[in-house]
Amino acid sequence: MPVPAPNLYPPFNIVRLSHVTYRVTDLAASRAFYVDTLGLQVTEENDSEIHLRAMEERGHHCIVLEQAGTADVGVLGFKLFDEPDLDKAEAFFRARGLPAEWVERPHMGRTLRTRDPWGIPLEFYVKMDRLPPIHQQYKLYRGVKPLRIDHFNMFSADVDASVAFYNDMGFRVTEYTEDAETGRVWAAWMHRKGGVHDVAFTNGLGPRLHHTAFWVPTPLNIIDLLDLMATTGYVANIERGPGRHGISNAFFLYVRDPDGHRIEIYCSDYQTVDPDLEAIRWDLKDPQRQTLWGAPAPRSWFEEGSLFEGAAPQDSALKAQPIIAP
Amino acid sequence: MPVPAPNLYPPFNIVRLSHVTYRVTDLAASRAFYVDTLGLQVTEENDSEIHLRAMEERGHHCIVLEQAGTADVGVLGFKLFDEPDLDKAEAFFRARGLPAEWVERPHMGRTLRTRDPWGIPLEFYVKMDRLPPIHQQYKLYRGVKPLRIDHFNMFSADVDASVAFYNDMGFRVTEYTEDAETGRVWAAWMHRKGGVHDVAFTNGLGPRLHHTAFWVPTPLNIIDLLDLMATTGYVANIERGPGRHGISNAFFLYVRDPDGHRIEIYCSDYQTVDPDLEAIRWDLKDPQRQTLWGAPAPRSWFEEGSLFEGAAPQDSALKAQPIIAP
Amino acid sequence: MPVPAPNLYPPFNIVRLSHVTYRVTDLAASRAFYVDTLGLQVTEENDSEIHLRAMEERGHHCIVLEQAGTADVGVLGFKLFDEPDLDKAEAFFRARGLPAEWVERPHMGRTLRTRDPWGIPLEFYVKMDRLPPIHQQYKLYRGVKPLRIDHFNMFSADVDASVAFYNDMGFRVTEYTEDAETGRVWAAWMHRKGGVHDVAFTNGLGPRLHHTAFWVPTPLNIIDLLDLMATTGYVANIERGPGRHGISNAFFLYVRDPDGHRIEIYCSDYQTVDPDLEAIRWDLKDPQRQTLWGAPAPRSWFEEGSLFEGAAPQDSALKAQPIIAP
Amino acid sequence: MPVPAPNLYPPFNIVRLSHVTYRVTDLAASRAFYVDTLGLQVTEENDSEIHLRAMEERGHHCIVLEQAGTADVGVLGFKLFDEPDLDKAEAFFRARGLPAEWVERPHMGRTLRTRDPWGIPLEFYVKMDRLPPIHQQYKLYRGVKPLRIDHFNMFSADVDASVAFYNDMGFRVTEYTEDAETGRVWAAWMHRKGGVHDVAFTNGLGPRLHHTAFWVPTPLNIIDLLDLMATTGYVANIERGPGRHGISNAFFLYVRDPDGHRIEIYCSDYQTVDPDLEAIRWDLKDPQRQTLWGAPAPRSWFEEGSLFEGAAPQDSALKAQPIIAP
Repeated sequence: MPVPAPNLYPPFNIVRLSHVTYRVTDLAASRAFYVDTLGLQVTEENDSEIHLRAMEERGHHCIVLEQAGTADVGVLGFKLFDEPDLDKAEAFFRARGLPAEWVERPHMGRTLRTRDPWGIPLEFYVKMDRLPPIHQQYKLYRGVKPLRIDHFNMFSADVDASVAFYNDMGFRVTEYTEDAETGRVWAAWMHRKGGVHDVAFTNGLGPRLHHTAFWVPTPLNIIDLLDLMATTGYVANIERGPGRHGISNAFFLYVRDPDGHRIEIYCSDYQTVDPDLEAIRWDLKDPQRQTLWGAPAPRSWFEEGSLFEGAAPQDSALKAQPIIAP
Repeated sequence: MPVPAPNLYPPFNIVRLSHVTYRVTDLAASRAFYVDTLGLQVTEENDSEIHLRAMEERGHHCIVLEQAGTADVGVLGFKLFDEPDLDKAEAFFRARGLPAEWVERPHMGRTLRTRDPWGIPLEFYVKMDRLPPIHQQYKLYRGVKPLRIDHFNMFSADVDASVAFYNDMGFRVTEYTEDAETGRVWAAWMHRKGGVHDVAFTNGLGPRLHHTAFWVPTPLNIIDLLDLMATTGYVANIERGPGRHGISNAFFLYVRDPDGHRIEIYCSDYQTVDPDLEAIRWDLKDPQRQTLWGAPAPRSWFEEGSLFEGAAPQDSALKAQPIIAP
Repeated sequence: MPVPAPNLYPPFNIVRLSHVTYRVTDLAASRAFYVDTLGLQVTEENDSEIHLRAMEERGHHCIVLEQAGTADVGVLGFKLFDEPDLDKAEAFFRARGLPAEWVERPHMGRTLRTRDPWGIPLEFYVKMDRLPPIHQQYKLYRGVKPLRIDHFNMFSADVDASVAFYNDMGFRVTEYTEDAETGRVWAAWMHRKGGVHDVAFTNGLGPRLHHTAFWVPTPLNIIDLLDLMATTGYVANIERGPGRHGISNAFFLYVRDPDGHRIEIYCSDYQTVDPDLEAIRWDLKDPQRQTLWGAPAPRSWFEEGSLFEGAAPQDSALKAQPIIAP
Repeated sequence: MPVPAPNLYPPFNIVRLSHVTYRVTDLAASRAFYVDTLGLQVTEENDSEIHLRAMEERGHHCIVLEQAGTADVGVLGFKLFDEPDLDKAEAFFRARGLPAEWVERPHMGRTLRTRDPWGIPLEFYVKMDRLPPIHQQYKLYRGVKPLRIDHFNMFSADVDASVAFYNDMGFRVTEYTEDAETGRVWAAWMHRKGGVHDVAFTNGLGPRLHHTAFWVPTPLNIIDLLDLMATTGYVANIERGPGRHGISNAFFLYVRDPDGHRIEIYCSDYQTVDPDLEAIRWDLKDPQRQTLWGAPAPRSWFEEGSLFEGAAPQDSALKAQPIIAP
């Protein structure tokens, strides 16, 4: 079996992915994209930073936009279950010789900053400032009506190794793509919170962030966003979709922010809370793997991604290629 | 605070609600309703029983229909995380002087049969036969396109006590209704699997089952079901809705099966995996509590429910009344 | 046959309903309702008048809101096909001893002002100022995303007579409700533009305007409006729905403006351009006539309406009653 | 101005497009596609012919499938307003030296068979057998829930000339594409029934039928069809879409039947009944003309089409090319 058995008793309890820090080169342009177009809500902003949340989130932020000279990704954040999990996490990373330091982060309690073995910057916390619910303030809904952050997808130069490491942390594989020739895993989707994924890994020059995804109510919201972007100067930012993924069965759209950071708009995958959920295998050459309806993804989608601050990407040894749009 | 703090370290680990056994007086009529109208899939049937699953479920059944002389509810089933949780559950119930026996159930592994303190028949298991996925066999989708069982709602003669007992088992309150005059909880919604609820309790003659709910993709599927039921002889089985709940923010419809068992069709509540999620309080007299758009529920919805086999219901001491449609 | 045969060669060619003038007692409150909540676009406004159009309309206005001491309806407007039709219309009304005068109306060419035999103020024109299309300026879409004015529904004290008169003008009956006891028509739906109706008549104290309807893209837009109104102080303005009409098969919602003028939000009826389209008959006592799903309309919906300026309503002789919600 | 002014007083009154006869090489395969997959209703069938209607149509058929040795198109049918229009049509075609004969067609009254100047086989009638309404028999809805035939799109070797001829017959241009270099019309959309088109012409090897379109309720029905086709062996029959057209603003999908005849699934264009509706001009090189969201159509979509029985296609003199997907 090419993917590891689920680790039902992980060393510390990760509840879900939580937030991402995007470093952007023009904060006003990014604000126009994330706030005015996608419809995320500003929870705090100044000249150098904007904190955003989606409509059903009560934590203070799911995205932090930071004005920077170069566009990259500052950190991926995860929420842990309880205070002792923070100390257990520290022990887990230290035992593997990985960095682990306690940092101050606004709006967050004790925060452990670390990196995975390939340099992806991670932070773990238990408490983030909680805000009053706004999910029933319907006059605030705009754009694609983003409800919550759903997942991160990362390029990995060694997906088998990435899966093994995140499996150790308790992420469970729900679906994966195998390269039939080598028997290696080409991509994998892994969850903590009961959907198809909190994190996914795709073979390629890595580590890089492929995309961050937001959950929306229905496919019609995605069509609304396409109509809006197409008529407000963002037509070139539409990269792929709309479509139905074979993997995850979700309805999707990929768009690029003004710095090229990729955002997926995503809805209607399925519930995965059963610990005995069988992972679904896909063949790399199956044309319906990417898009159930048969349309391949464009080359940019396979090749472009956001660098993580402080992590130099490496080429992947696995050279197998999926079907790419001509 | 009228609802207990979440029990983050429960005595055994319940993953989610799993299934219900409905005893029905005309199996063919029930089949026409659940299979041909709602669109559930038959996984096994004979002259006296039909097993059904929803489209994204891989467990063998979420409903068992049993031919019986009298319509009632046989049992509510819950899936546990791992084998040791079964033994811990047995100890939990025995310690409280409640029945706990190991029973044989087709398609299920070790199964613990018990009752809650008011007599609601419960069963717990870890392993149920797993079936191949059908969520991408779109030709099988029919009716309301039910994706998965979502929750049980029960009448309780003492909601505060029911909440305390299920809280002990690890169910966490997400929203509740308070009777302002007495300070007592009139209704509560409690989850394990990360949605607004796996179980809910409503003040009234109890224990009785108020309804079982199924999750569907979008509100348009609910409109499709209304059109179908209205033109296939089921117009009198439409009890309440469609509408948006104030509580849970879900889009809903309530229909009655041929024996009067109530089924809710439900979609678009919100994610509740955060252990520090603040429960939302509603006042019993708030007209938007039931339906955000202001329409009250009919009297039948407040008064009628399904008896549990072997459990005699008692009147509630709390006499406070919500707004009822004239 | 209780409804007249269609008049395929009418005396003048009415293209479609066009606009309504609502006299309102608080122009700012009406603006908040029609512009900020429903999402109509302002094409001109000053302290005493606001002109509005819907998203796919190129004519200057479909609603004129006029500040007035008393709320009523100023006029119902209809677009004619060509200039000679205006003179033919004048001859038609004069021949029946009805008023017919040429009036100046801003943004409109030659305009014939008249009244039907029961005093409903009507105006006919061929040319109205044409504005650039905005249907692909998606950033302007708001509220319920109203696309176009769809129809007027009027109380009539003698529906048979109203149908006969409007049939003479070329409106064709698509559906009607008969009182089985008397054989009289209780309500009728009549079109010019190829949908189920441009005008409808309902038995009751008349003439009064029952409602003006706007066409929207899908039922989900109606659900969005309900969510918005329910959380912005308009919950009491939601009168009936959402639902599927038996008659017309349309999905509907009825709301009341700040003066009580009734607006229907409407979508998905059917095409009626065939001149040999058979009118569909409904019995007044059929519960699915009003709402296919069985829910009756509230009493206010049957009894309340807007007065036409200068037209005193009369009681209807036909006393038959539909099913009314308790 | 590159398109002619609308002919408000045409020589005979065409109500709408009505039906198409497709000659197919495997009637059973075509039935599986049109009936089981798209969801059209069989109104009559035998070993050599199947008649179909869509859900809101009351005329006997909108498609006739005929078993044949070679796949092509037998005829395009149009409904006229009244009996005298048939004789006026005969005179119109005879005056232009075009064929005009009275033919017997099952289920239809007097039927005039003719060809346009480029050989497209046309038939005109007033009366077709009328069937009971089924639009409220919701148990019959399947597949994409087709409501009615919407339009024909034809390749023309001289679009300017085709537009002039159909304009003479009273079709009015709603939108058109101009080749900026030559000032010639590259494509045009023309209506009779009040939508964006009953007929359209596209520059290319012609005459050939580019596609027949069906109107469906909402974009979600199109997504449902994609999911169904993708999982029932029709993934290769999905040619283009889903997307939003720039021209017409409609939401679309193009699929191919088992013989390669192209069917468009279409919804949400706009009302065009105003005789003074201004035609919208698009530049051939505008990437949003084809798809508002920017995705170009594939080469097959520009090059492939169905031959008309008995009409040899000619190359177009106009060589200008739109943007084609690589």
